[in-house]
Amino acid sequence: MRVSRCFLPVLKESPSDAQIVSHKLMLRAGLVRQTASGIYAWLPIGFRVLKKIEQIVREEQDRAGAQEMLMPTIQSADLWRESGRYDAYGPEMLRIRDRHDREMLYGPTNEEMLTAIFRDEAKSYRDLPRTLYHIQWKFRDEVRPRFGVMRGREFLMKDAYSFDLDEAGARLSYYTQLLAYLRTFQRMGIKAVPMRAANGPIGGDLSHEFIVLAPTGESEVFYDSAFEDMDWNREGLSYGDEAGLRELFEEVTTTYAATDETHDEGRWVDVPDVRKRTGRGIEVGHIFYFGDLYSVKMGLKVSGKDGIPVVPHMGSYGIGVSRLVGAIIEASHDEAGIVWPESVAPWTVGLVTMRGDDEPTVTAAEQLYRQLEAAGVETLYDDRDERGGVKLGSMDLIGLPWQLIVGPRGIANNMVELKNRRTGEKQELSVESALARLTS
Amino acid sequence: MRVSRCFLPVLKESPSDAQIVSHKLMLRAGLVRQTASGIYAWLPIGFRVLKKIEQIVREEQDRAGAQEMLMPTIQSADLWRESGRYDAYGPEMLRIRDRHDREMLYGPTNEEMLTAIFRDEAKSYRDLPRTLYHIQWKFRDEVRPRFGVMRGREFLMKDAYSFDLDEAGARLSYYTQLLAYLRTFQRMGIKAVPMRAANGPIGGDLSHEFIVLAPTGESEVFYDSAFEDMDWNREGLSYGDEAGLRELFEEVTTTYAATDETHDEGRWVDVPDVRKRTGRGIEVGHIFYFGDLYSVKMGLKVSGKDGIPVVPHMGSYGIGVSRLVGAIIEASHDEAGIVWPESVAPWTVGLVTMRGDDEPTVTAAEQLYRQLEAAGVETLYDDRDERGGVKLGSMDLIGLPWQLIVGPRGIANNMVELKNRRTGEKQELSVESALARLTS
Repeated sequence: MRVSRCFLPVLKESPSDAQIVSHKLMLRAGLVRQTASGIYAWLPIGFRVLKKIEQIVREEQDRAGAQEMLMPTIQSADLWRESGRYDAYGPEMLRIRDRHDREMLYGPTNEEMLTAIFRDEAKSYRDLPRTLYHIQWKFRDEVRPRFGVMRGREFLMKDAYSFDLDEAGARLSYYTQLLAYLRTFQRMGIKAVPMRAANGPIGGDLSHEFIVLAPTGESEVFYDSAFEDMDWNREGLSYGDEAGLRELFEEVTTTYAATDETHDEGRWVDVPDVRKRTGRGIEVGHIFYFGDLYSVKMGLKVSGKDGIPVVPHMGSYGIGVSRLVGAIIEASHDEAGIVWPESVAPWTVGLVTMRGDDEPTVTAAEQLYRQLEAAGVETLYDDRDERGGVKLGSMDLIGLPWQLIVGPRGIANNMVELKNRRTGEKQELSVESALARLTS
Repeated sequence: MRVSRCFLPVLKESPSDAQIVSHKLMLRAGLVRQTASGIYAWLPIGFRVLKKIEQIVREEQDRAGAQEMLMPTIQSADLWRESGRYDAYGPEMLRIRDRHDREMLYGPTNEEMLTAIFRDEAKSYRDLPRTLYHIQWKFRDEVRPRFGVMRGREFLMKDAYSFDLDEAGARLSYYTQLLAYLRTFQRMGIKAVPMRAANGPIGGDLSHEFIVLAPTGESEVFYDSAFEDMDWNREGLSYGDEAGLRELFEEVTTTYAATDETHDEGRWVDVPDVRKRTGRGIEVGHIFYFGDLYSVKMGLKVSGKDGIPVVPHMGSYGIGVSRLVGAIIEASHDEAGIVWPESVAPWTVGLVTMRGDDEPTVTAAEQLYRQLEAAGVETLYDDRDERGGVKLGSMDLIGLPWQLIVGPRGIANNMVELKNRRTGEKQELSVESALARLTS
């Protein structure tokens, strides 16, 4: 993509209305613009990041055997009356009356809707187990939206729902999602620690939050740094392996991690001091097992093997897709701007000409751009006739993993500069070596 | 994907509440379920089709140089007051009050929002031309929703917006989208004919609708069948070529095509009788050039080359992504069910075992499934222990382009049956030949 043809507004100054670093950087680098309180438009660069995150979530859900579908944003109030949550939900639910004065709402979550759909279609034990998910915009009418997309009102969430014939099956579905979550966050390059949590208004008695350290987090967290060294793609860990999944659950629940809500000083003292991690944390995912709570309330049952009706056990599993854009920036930035993990970067390479009016520089950059694109390397090419320093500053702010810098002095000797955004390390390389490095 | 693990509810009987064939087939084949009047949940198979259509739209927009972003569904009423459309829009606009009693609405389109975003960011002539688009759910509170996703209330739309420095540039942007639309629909295997249309509430004086023939269409249409033979990917037609784009526009506007609104008997008599096509048609896309209408109302201007402020000319360009699922079925089905064009089919191959309890049959099918998946051929494998006839009926209903049928008699001689869903043609082939045919 050529910057000269992009809609990529970059701010020189730090916006005064943003309180936290991720929000500031998202505004400065042109990822989002607020269009109403707590509601954001995703500009092209932010949209690309959002899609990368969404795609990682999708791939790991698919690998875990969940099936994608898509539920609408607007729901009927009657559905929520069946579960009793219409009155219970409070003012965070955006309630709407349509032109026929029917009570509707903008869905904050989808337990009711999917339970109703599943109830109407699933007839027999053969139709279970199933885990279904969708990635859809939700709305929660926060009284005081803040921190940009971290606590907005309209937000993108992946929510999955599992249906099993009994508690043992439902727990396996829960463990399967647990593993999918650990792998999802690992792929995004962040340390999201699973912590035992209260079930809250969803109901049930088994729940974990996935929390990323960030100074602006809503809760205080305490965990064993052993979590930071665990590899969730290690050999011997696979979705089909029931014993392995149970061991994973054991491992996750015996390694210490808690929010201030669930913190236990008695167990915390047993964690060696060098492995103690504390700070504030942001929730990026939350999983729940709630048994037959919704099945009973909404009359979901299927015929069992012996013909006797069975009431399915359910769980639900959320990931804050749009919130993750902010959370990743909170966890990965420096003085100069964002530092994207490669897996979620809007582009992999930022190609910069130091002089837009020097013919050999432009010719070399144009050719590099074509070669990188042909090799499938996602490249943002700053081809503007603008001062080199300004362009480098923007690239640092936008935070692509690699900068490939072409200038008149270097190119006279067939040399370019390759900069690693994370380490800051710069190398002078021949054009061919730089290309080989980025396309290998 | 294995049917035994899929959420794929298929109805044996035709649903009584559906009036048109696409709606009936979408319910029977398990593509959607209604969750409230005019609001649908997309079940896994419908979701896959929706995503395929969305992806074709996206790729052709990207090729045409448009840049993707994403605007929120909920908008502030104040934005619409700037253009004067808040009061003008009428009861199809879903109006909402949030917890602070602020007036909001569920966006039916985004001219106002993007004009405001662009106004705040674009400063100079260098920031133009730009065409931005998003693919987002919209809401129009139809008084009497019907025909399933064809006239629903919550629907998925691609809407693009172009910003140019003058009318000549804006017309080129319009022609560029015109070509992108023709290519988009051609890729989906449908004949969508561009017809001159009234601009209506969007404003302006240049507009085309893209219309697909279907007996339940909302308007009567008249067109020259020459449109059906045009290849929009022919040589000599490219986005950068201004003269070629102007010729394309000439060609499209001189070849006869009109709805009852714009029909001209005087010109119609000149179309040779053998090339006359009439019938009812469904709108699947609509493009508008409306000059400086929104720019003036909303105060969008940039500094020109000579420093004098310039008021940009705009156009907007919509495609009904969710509606297309219905429109394609209207245009492509038979007595037995849906007949998907390959480019939008939820899977390419339906693999069926005629006997789920015959070991050689199952072994052969399992291996074929692995081989097809490994070759990247999207396969729906009906591995259920269910009568072969029932499974074949479901496959016809679902409408995948190819059926690969494995039965005990054939497999004893290493033979399988390959059926083309569209033509009905069946061939007995060796396992290896069938595989080669599908993976080549």
